[in-house]
Amino acid sequence: MTWTCMAPAKLKSEKLVLDTSVFVNPDVRAALGPTPTEALKEFAALASRDDRLEFYMPSSVFDELMNFVSRDDIPAEVLLYLKQRSPRKHELATPAFLLYELMEEMRERVNKGLRLAEKAARSAASTGASDEQIKELRRKYRDALREGIIDSKEDVDLILLSMELQATLVTADQGAIKWADKLGVKWLLPERFRDYLDASLAASGKGE
Amino acid sequence: MTWTCMAPAKLKSEKLVLDTSVFVNPDVRAALGPTPTEALKEFAALASRDDRLEFYMPSSVFDELMNFVSRDDIPAEVLLYLKQRSPRKHELATPAFLLYELMEEMRERVNKGLRLAEKAARSAASTGASDEQIKELRRKYRDALREGIIDSKEDVDLILLSMELQATLVTADQGAIKWADKLGVKWLLPERFRDYLDASLAASGKGE
Repeated sequence: MTWTCMAPAKLKSEKLVLDTSVFVNPDVRAALGPTPTEALKEFAALASRDDRLEFYMPSSVFDELMNFVSRDDIPAEVLLYLKQRSPRKHELATPAFLLYELMEEMRERVNKGLRLAEKAARSAASTGASDEQIKELRRKYRDALREGIIDSKEDVDLILLSMELQATLVTADQGAIKWADKLGVKWLLPERFRDYLDASLAASGKGE
Repeated sequence: MTWTCMAPAKLKSEKLVLDTSVFVNPDVRAALGPTPTEALKEFAALASRDDRLEFYMPSSVFDELMNFVSRDDIPAEVLLYLKQRSPRKHELATPAFLLYELMEEMRERVNKGLRLAEKAARSAASTGASDEQIKELRRKYRDALREGIIDSKEDVDLILLSMELQATLVTADQGAIKWADKLGVKWLLPERFRDYLDASLAASGKGE
């Protein structure tokens, strides 16, 4: 048997859960637009042409986005194509092994914080504790204790909503990706989100 | 109708999950015996007479207990009446809302730790950072960050095993009690454990 023409296989429909970082983090946003508002507009333009993809954003994350785009400036198409909804946290369950991993992570953080506190006390004893030095301590401390961990309601919302909807998570937050991956949630390289949207349109014969 | 004699209603059988603290914490142990080994012996003597109660201890907690009682000194009856077993953490699930509460707790701890670190740096700038002062910092830090939180594998094992077996948790650890209670796990005032055992025997007509 031979084929003279091959059309791409039909792709199944797909849900995506988007983080603020898609529109706010400069590295990730760049492919969509120079500002959050323009990136949102471009996203909505692509989303409106794609009848295969559905987009969601947890309400807490949407609130975060409102720190970067004023409520009145959200393009109306964004309201149409980016659905706002929280995970059903009173119905959902997560595997118990996750608690052990979170405990482990928490213990490591606590110990890391203690080492930083000791170091700060020792260095303050010899060089003093100016406002500048205290600011530096705060920065180091927060960096050390928050890196690579899910440490906010918004992170948990992103992960649980992706799990609940069997959606693909799009975020630049490495901590959220790490924990989503532990739970078997699909995820996308965030910098390639624009490429993903273009490829999806192309596969449906709607590419430019 | 009148009754001339009233026997207590038959109590249903009951599982209990025991923490090391039952045999190790002096306030809790006191009613059972002056040393961990003697408390274990007395416990086994009571347990052997009670055909209504079943006792469990997570393996990780049993390991902890071995820091206080040498493996060869465990009374043989304890092996018989105190079952060693871990929760089935790869099958169990916990409600998703728990993750939000843990996140919240973790954030509060991180902020508390940071405040302590700042205070330590400021005080070290004026009074120095002797070994004694660093030791004091460590103590304060660990107390602040570990109090009232589930922060160990052992705590999670206690809570999950109680949940899985629909058992009553007996521990002096306030953090474990708090989180077990959030999950609807039964728990006992730990200082009254001996009284509970006596009452159980009395209710079965086996009291002294």
